[in-house]
Amino acid sequence: MRAIGFNTSYEIDEENSLIEFKAEKPISSEFDIVVKVIAASMNPVDTKVRVNSAKDIILDDPKILGYDGIGVIESIGSKVTNFKQGDKVFYAGDVTKNGSNAQFQLIDSRIVALAPTSISDEEAVVLPLTSLTAWEAMFDRMNIDPSENKTILIIGGAGGVGSIATQIAKQTTNLTVIATASREETTKWCKDMGADHVVNHRDLVNSVNEAGFESIDYIFNVANTFIHWDSMAELIAPQGKICSIVDTEEPIDINKLKAKSVTFIWEFMFTRAMFNTKDIQKQSDILAEITSLVDQSKIKSTLSKTFNGFSVENFKAAHKLSESGKAVGKTAIIF
Amino acid sequence: MRAIGFNTSYEIDEENSLIEFKAEKPISSEFDIVVKVIAASMNPVDTKVRVNSAKDIILDDPKILGYDGIGVIESIGSKVTNFKQGDKVFYAGDVTKNGSNAQFQLIDSRIVALAPTSISDEEAVVLPLTSLTAWEAMFDRMNIDPSENKTILIIGGAGGVGSIATQIAKQTTNLTVIATASREETTKWCKDMGADHVVNHRDLVNSVNEAGFESIDYIFNVANTFIHWDSMAELIAPQGKICSIVDTEEPIDINKLKAKSVTFIWEFMFTRAMFNTKDIQKQSDILAEITSLVDQSKIKSTLSKTFNGFSVENFKAAHKLSESGKAVGKTAIIF
Repeated sequence: MRAIGFNTSYEIDEENSLIEFKAEKPISSEFDIVVKVIAASMNPVDTKVRVNSAKDIILDDPKILGYDGIGVIESIGSKVTNFKQGDKVFYAGDVTKNGSNAQFQLIDSRIVALAPTSISDEEAVVLPLTSLTAWEAMFDRMNIDPSENKTILIIGGAGGVGSIATQIAKQTTNLTVIATASREETTKWCKDMGADHVVNHRDLVNSVNEAGFESIDYIFNVANTFIHWDSMAELIAPQGKICSIVDTEEPIDINKLKAKSVTFIWEFMFTRAMFNTKDIQKQSDILAEITSLVDQSKIKSTLSKTFNGFSVENFKAAHKLSESGKAVGKTAIIF
Repeated sequence: MRAIGFNTSYEIDEENSLIEFKAEKPISSEFDIVVKVIAASMNPVDTKVRVNSAKDIILDDPKILGYDGIGVIESIGSKVTNFKQGDKVFYAGDVTKNGSNAQFQLIDSRIVALAPTSISDEEAVVLPLTSLTAWEAMFDRMNIDPSENKTILIIGGAGGVGSIATQIAKQTTNLTVIATASREETTKWCKDMGADHVVNHRDLVNSVNEAGFESIDYIFNVANTFIHWDSMAELIAPQGKICSIVDTEEPIDINKLKAKSVTFIWEFMFTRAMFNTKDIQKQSDILAEITSLVDQSKIKSTLSKTFNGFSVENFKAAHKLSESGKAVGKTAIIF
């Protein structure tokens, strides 16, 4: 089969930063299914893995990138009971395995769900990774009770995860959503996603206070943990919770959260698959919930850019756009 | 009234590290009651406040230390409905207010409970602060479900909080309790408290592994957050939770918890009183639960040393013992 990946970490502009190669078509077994991939989407993790995982080495077998995927089931393993050949599924994959940037992909059926039927493939494929991240952060990590009349601050509201987190929070909970943005375009985007308030993360504490909030019950940081640490410590309510998905560049003064008995939680969407946790099936259940919300028109796709065609050129352009940090919403590559 | 406290931060051996002075007897109002104090106990926070809160300054009014207290209600405020004059209550106080090292103390009725009747005053007075800390850590912060067959590692099992945490975990949950100790005396103490396993915190990862555990669902650190950080990161299960009550000496590499989507939570027993949170009454409810467990003989006092008499000499000796770090169990001062 045709696949796109890399065998050494290069800057994206280098000729071999991404390469096309022939790979063995995978074979389904046990819980694993083989999907004929229709489209993939870009997430920051694609570029991070490309840049960091093969520095100064050459991999024997090139690594296939791509986490978000949508496709049709080609074959199922012996333990798969809830899907059949021909089902169209979408998923966010497993960072420890080969990904969706190939004609066929092997994936654990317990982390896939039937794709939405009311939107296009490229609109659907941008949803899994960000939706799972946002859902797990709010409900599995911060353990938010949807009926609570509390506040959530989403730092980085216009990015992929921030956009979908805002929609999920507004559509499934009583939370008041304060999203952050700093440009006119991103501020408008956050409002389109349903944010009740949009504040500026360049002056976060004052900006939140000026919007009428002295403290915040839940903070979901999808932008920068280190830069916003002191502001988060100041804004978080006593006994509040902060969830982040972004590594810190430097060690952190966690004592700042102590007097208020604050909870700090990491959300890493690959944890369940990576450690094959007992609750791995939860990811399939969450994705099924996302499909349902989409097909009820409660959640809209965050797609903003589509590249047409399975080519190194298109994947390179998509990586470059992601690395620019300027992307609003999400990018799909349709094969 | 007679009171013991300090107006400058001194080492305990200095003459004026603690002084006796006359203070105004407090007056009850609203939710606040006045208690005629019978006994106090020592916690690390007493020495920390003494040493750190008046460095190179002289306070106009000496600060009265003492958080744990037991006594008889002398008068109640207008909003107090659940207690009456003459009730014997115990409590862990409020670090922002004057404490129990005085003949009378003003305290918010929403953080006190009727004292146990089956044990002595000195046995009872050592319980509130440690019990509240352990209870809040396990049930309000880590949100442990008592019915789960999971594991908890208590780092610092022989200290005041560790001792009571072990008992509460064993008596009210299905948790397997692994407590840490490093000396023969403390190892025996941990077993007496009910720990299922006692492991050595000087070689924590190996010691836990040798006890038969590859990973741990909940870690409660009451010893040293910084020193044990890497071991905790290694031992904690994917999606596990770590709660600490001890400030770190240096900034921390929190990224180590990310791949497993781990939760890190501070427990600070004074948060509810300090910020007058909406759920402040929860502390009274928890203490009432502790009283009930004690009077059902499910929890035993962690008292190991009693000083008799309200004197500067006795309080100094109690501070000195606490600062030695060698105390096993808890110290009471009975007036």
